[in-house]
Amino acid sequence: MIIVRTVAEMQGLSRRWRREGKRVGFVPTMGFLHDGHLSLVRLARDESDVSAVSIFVNPTQFGPSEDLAQYPRDFLRDEALCRGEGVDCVFYPAPEEMYASDFSTWVEEGVLSKPLCGQARPTHFRGVTTVVTKLFNAVLPDVAVFGRKDAQQALVIERMVRDLNVPVRIIVGDIIRESDGLAMSSRNKYLSVDERQRALSIRAGLLAASRLYDGGEKTAEVLRLAVLGSIEEQGGKVDYVELVSRAQLAALPQVSEPAVIAVAAFFGKTRLIDNCYLG
Amino acid sequence: MIIVRTVAEMQGLSRRWRREGKRVGFVPTMGFLHDGHLSLVRLARDESDVSAVSIFVNPTQFGPSEDLAQYPRDFLRDEALCRGEGVDCVFYPAPEEMYASDFSTWVEEGVLSKPLCGQARPTHFRGVTTVVTKLFNAVLPDVAVFGRKDAQQALVIERMVRDLNVPVRIIVGDIIRESDGLAMSSRNKYLSVDERQRALSIRAGLLAASRLYDGGEKTAEVLRLAVLGSIEEQGGKVDYVELVSRAQLAALPQVSEPAVIAVAAFFGKTRLIDNCYLG
Repeated sequence: MIIVRTVAEMQGLSRRWRREGKRVGFVPTMGFLHDGHLSLVRLARDESDVSAVSIFVNPTQFGPSEDLAQYPRDFLRDEALCRGEGVDCVFYPAPEEMYASDFSTWVEEGVLSKPLCGQARPTHFRGVTTVVTKLFNAVLPDVAVFGRKDAQQALVIERMVRDLNVPVRIIVGDIIRESDGLAMSSRNKYLSVDERQRALSIRAGLLAASRLYDGGEKTAEVLRLAVLGSIEEQGGKVDYVELVSRAQLAALPQVSEPAVIAVAAFFGKTRLIDNCYLG
Repeated sequence: MIIVRTVAEMQGLSRRWRREGKRVGFVPTMGFLHDGHLSLVRLARDESDVSAVSIFVNPTQFGPSEDLAQYPRDFLRDEALCRGEGVDCVFYPAPEEMYASDFSTWVEEGVLSKPLCGQARPTHFRGVTTVVTKLFNAVLPDVAVFGRKDAQQALVIERMVRDLNVPVRIIVGDIIRESDGLAMSSRNKYLSVDERQRALSIRAGLLAASRLYDGGEKTAEVLRLAVLGSIEEQGGKVDYVELVSRAQLAALPQVSEPAVIAVAAFFGKTRLIDNCYLG
């Protein structure tokens, strides 16, 4: 497995692979890998001949008061996990390699980025679309894999790829959960034992809403309240619980088209997200 | 010479060329080609094995009160000129092929885009960087050629390429002029015989400034006034005459580093631009 630290070397490696007729699969990550990431790596390997994983804690997708400095990092562990999955290349650039001091060009999606996490984190998705563009231009993949835990991110990336004619096929992998149902996230590490237990109320609320929907309930307010009630009962501070269309992330009064209930909630200082498709 | 009208077909053609080991040269244009464009085509051919020219009057780089509808078009003539230059492919997409009705992703450079033409045309460069990104993703070139007549555009594109790790080498070709000195532009067609004659004052003013600089004059105000006086004497309405650094397009009080005097001026309803490097 090759560790690459510069954009130029990464482009050279990928171009070599392509000249050899190999399809390149790519999983962009912020590191501190868990089984959710590894499931995406397996999807990428299924769809390609060679695979690259990037590990880069992207500063531009964090807000000024967010957890950039605290974000968990463990490169040696990540490297071993990638090796264990048969990854061919880890792209591990330094922040200075990615952002010149006078960096001034942004890629911004202006509609799907606005609701949900875009409300509380107004510059987050601009950072995501910009860094994903940069990573795509460095790794030059045929196919890239994102996780559905970040459902809004996946939709924003798919829109960006469509709008800018980005020559990369996007695959979205399922949410991978801990055995007790908590969606896997590098941020779960922040939770105390007590917070970790109470955070299960997110998944419990989504399951309750899903059962209501299966029983015929389609009204957004009823479905939302099932999730909200579950989380608040356990002392979680809800950022949002919204029923939105999967096509446009537009708020729906009822499940009248393919929809998603998306949640963000704090337990202690830790902001967790999760979601559930309905319809 | 192949005419390609869809992004998918263009990507397929370019990928085929690349698999054959051919270097792809590209000149993006808005059509109504003149010798300035053709000089860029020759530069592209010198640096590549196969060449593509795009002809697309990009709606997103025109402001609401600008000349999108009137912009001159003559595809059959452009096609013949490209054929005459030995171009391998003309990429000629319809607006609907380039912009979905719910298009929502923009590439925006936020510093070099702001002064000069960015003042009078606040959304212009966002349209340029967005469409150039789309055209690059369609044509997948190794090298792309832009003209120095649009000096700010070339600098903005170079910054975008650096910032986003775009895997395309940018070449900037010299300004090509009519025999009497007017910088070639598709918009010259708008000028009446009288306006055409008076518009020569732009080049005359830039030459006067250049002579002053060669004689030791470095003060921005003196150099600017030479250009301004020449244009206003001929009844031109100056949008801007600025002395700026070539690195950052920052206003300079004097020529203390590589600089450019950039001009935009109206003759009648026609807005013309030109520039001159100093230092």
